[in-house]
Amino acid sequence: MKAARIYGKQDLRIEDVELKDPKADQVQIKVKDIGICGSDIHMYQEGTGIPYKKHPLTGKTVPVTEGHEFSGEVVKIGQDVKDIAVGDHVCVEPIIACGKCEFCRKGLYNYCEKGVGPDGSLQFIGFSDDGAMAEYVNVKDMYTYKLPDGMDYELGALVEPTVVTYQAVRDSGLTAGQSVVVLGAGPIGLLTALVAKYAGATTIYIADLAQNRLDKAKELGFTDVVNSGEVNLIDNVHEKFPQGVDVVFECAGAQPTLNQAVQLVAPAGVLEIEALFNGNYTLDITTLQNKGARVYTMMGYANGFPQTIGIINQHRDTFKKLITKRISLDDAEEGIKSLMTDKTQVKVMISPEL
Amino acid sequence: MKAARIYGKQDLRIEDVELKDPKADQVQIKVKDIGICGSDIHMYQEGTGIPYKKHPLTGKTVPVTEGHEFSGEVVKIGQDVKDIAVGDHVCVEPIIACGKCEFCRKGLYNYCEKGVGPDGSLQFIGFSDDGAMAEYVNVKDMYTYKLPDGMDYELGALVEPTVVTYQAVRDSGLTAGQSVVVLGAGPIGLLTALVAKYAGATTIYIADLAQNRLDKAKELGFTDVVNSGEVNLIDNVHEKFPQGVDVVFECAGAQPTLNQAVQLVAPAGVLEIEALFNGNYTLDITTLQNKGARVYTMMGYANGFPQTIGIINQHRDTFKKLITKRISLDDAEEGIKSLMTDKTQVKVMISPEL
Repeated sequence: MKAARIYGKQDLRIEDVELKDPKADQVQIKVKDIGICGSDIHMYQEGTGIPYKKHPLTGKTVPVTEGHEFSGEVVKIGQDVKDIAVGDHVCVEPIIACGKCEFCRKGLYNYCEKGVGPDGSLQFIGFSDDGAMAEYVNVKDMYTYKLPDGMDYELGALVEPTVVTYQAVRDSGLTAGQSVVVLGAGPIGLLTALVAKYAGATTIYIADLAQNRLDKAKELGFTDVVNSGEVNLIDNVHEKFPQGVDVVFECAGAQPTLNQAVQLVAPAGVLEIEALFNGNYTLDITTLQNKGARVYTMMGYANGFPQTIGIINQHRDTFKKLITKRISLDDAEEGIKSLMTDKTQVKVMISPEL
Repeated sequence: MKAARIYGKQDLRIEDVELKDPKADQVQIKVKDIGICGSDIHMYQEGTGIPYKKHPLTGKTVPVTEGHEFSGEVVKIGQDVKDIAVGDHVCVEPIIACGKCEFCRKGLYNYCEKGVGPDGSLQFIGFSDDGAMAEYVNVKDMYTYKLPDGMDYELGALVEPTVVTYQAVRDSGLTAGQSVVVLGAGPIGLLTALVAKYAGATTIYIADLAQNRLDKAKELGFTDVVNSGEVNLIDNVHEKFPQGVDVVFECAGAQPTLNQAVQLVAPAGVLEIEALFNGNYTLDITTLQNKGARVYTMMGYANGFPQTIGIINQHRDTFKKLITKRISLDDAEEGIKSLMTDKTQVKVMISPEL
């Protein structure tokens, strides 16, 4: 079968690989849609998360098939699989976890002691094990979730990135009626704003410098959409919320937005960092202390797929608007590259059937 | 009566002031012991927290009587006071709060919207209203707590600083059996270590550069006491806890200890900042993200006096060891000055009866 395999930084090859049968606890999925994620771009562009050393749980090293946001149809099941059947439409939690360590036993399998590889390769299939940028993929049945009737494969492939934001919203402790600022209107920022809305936030500011992205936010129904290059975001938010907002989601990952986040969080509020930062940053601790505010970081996600599937299924039309392009598997590399510069795209889907 | 009143930075005067009768909801306390706090030192030395502008709730401005860690005997009560009687031995929660704003109504009166003065004067008597470095003080009955039989005035004056650390330990989510690092073995560091111990932490590292302070930690019964100038603290902790400890309490307030804290916190752990920082610091966000760790800051305390009184009363002999000197009210300024340099002192008590 055809697969897009990463060999190293900026070395992605479309190759013909052998399709193995699913193991006893696996299902085989004919892949229908695979989203391209920011972390796919980082892996391709900077080599972040590539398993150059053998991963302790999967035994895999380069080359690995990319792709961890996906959906498809079950075509074969292993001998021990009971709850998933051939013909099921599914999406997949692409996590890798031992199930045995202190963290796994606590339910925090996103902190699994063996999850991240010895060289920092990510705790997901598509990084530390073969992923779904292929015609077929075999995955563990326990990480396979049936899509509700009428929820299509594109929406199914949106579940994984949405779970990241579901985790962030849940982690932040956001409750209905609260106020929110989302810094950055890329895919994660937009999804965070949607999940915050469906979690009951009553005021949601979304800020970015790219007008294309802000237009998409408006298309999704948001009204407090701020171009921080044109308007003073701090003043704008303080007009209505002089003390700041309950939760600030940092989905941009830059020093200026981190500074804004510190200014915008309310007393006793939470600054939830979702974007990947790179090393050392300046933090105004005194301002945080004067508000008694907290800074949360995240480690992937756990126990959020069923809830997120429910949210997307209830708001299908809105989530559909996030899918801006479909490309073929042969064009995967081109698709990854284009996302580095083209801010008009939100979620690009690869379809092996194209 | 005699009172130590602050007029401005490095201007503390022992003066004779009029003693007023308690208001309807106040009790009058003959002050027995007043501890000198780090914030008293900051106020004296740098002018931090002095009410140069009129405080909205108390109507006070300079000069104000210092002193917010204290105990004494009730000598008069206002006409509406029912639960406190003349003769009671008490300590006092020195907080100033409106009782009406959003935060007060939530029980978060430490975040009271009118608590901190317009020029940043602190939300405590002894800063934004007359405090207890005097022969007598009038305070609201609702903030007055009876000392259990046999718990003396010195221990009573220790309650307030201990509440700060009780708040930190509770805020951090520390649970029995967990591991802790306390950075800084000053009064707040030592009290934090004790409260963490009584909250069930089973391993408690205490680190400092000052051997005098570490000796006091040993005297209190701690065994994992590390002189970070002589031993590599990170290596030392990682030997037993390769992934780090559950909670790091930052009680030093400096860039090197902040860096250590980031290195020492475990995956899914909490870095609880207690020390006052001053502006911008460098924070290694990537390392925090790779652990999915959190950074908490505090805003004073709320709802912790009864519990803290219980803890101190149960461990009287240990807490007694923290009181290293008693001085007279006339020597208040000298006492404050000496604490800036003398690391052999932990808690210096002022007694107006000396």
